[in-house]
Amino acid sequence: MGMYMDVHRGMKGITSAELKDAHAADAAIEKEEGVHFERAWADPESGTVYCLSTAPSADAVQRIHERAGHTADEIHAVPLMV
Amino acid sequence: MGMYMDVHRGMKGITSAELKDAHAADAAIEKEEGVHFERAWADPESGTVYCLSTAPSADAVQRIHERAGHTADEIHAVPLMV
Repeated sequence: MGMYMDVHRGMKGITSAELKDAHAADAAIEKEEGVHFERAWADPESGTVYCLSTAPSADAVQRIHERAGHTADEIHAVPLMV
Repeated sequence: MGMYMDVHRGMKGITSAELKDAHAADAAIEKEEGVHFERAWADPESGTVYCLSTAPSADAVQRIHERAGHTADEIHAVPLMV
């Protein structure tokens, strides 16, 4: 298990309700891949969303995001944290 | 005050000690701009570092990062969070 930061672009104008719905869609199925989405932050102006997760692999994170309908544009393992 | 996510690129091979030192350099002067760096995550393989902060503005975040010697490549206000 490791920590991952993934990035979604093209989400201009995303609302608080839409972010919550997207997170809920991930959370509903995340256990099937051993993923846990910890937090997500959104910038509606540039349309960027950052998701922090713990997961067995970046592929597992992507599979959950794809099935939830929002494929990530980048996924980075972030083994270092302060 | 708001939350900001900033991104640094080109940090390939960054170590845990280097991340801690960079964070400490920010923390030492952050109060002068009313900024607080909450967390940072690093991907040494791609050389990407993400910093989460609370701050009065993106410019305030950048001024601290510049003075600490590591200008951010992107800074996004992230008013939405789950």
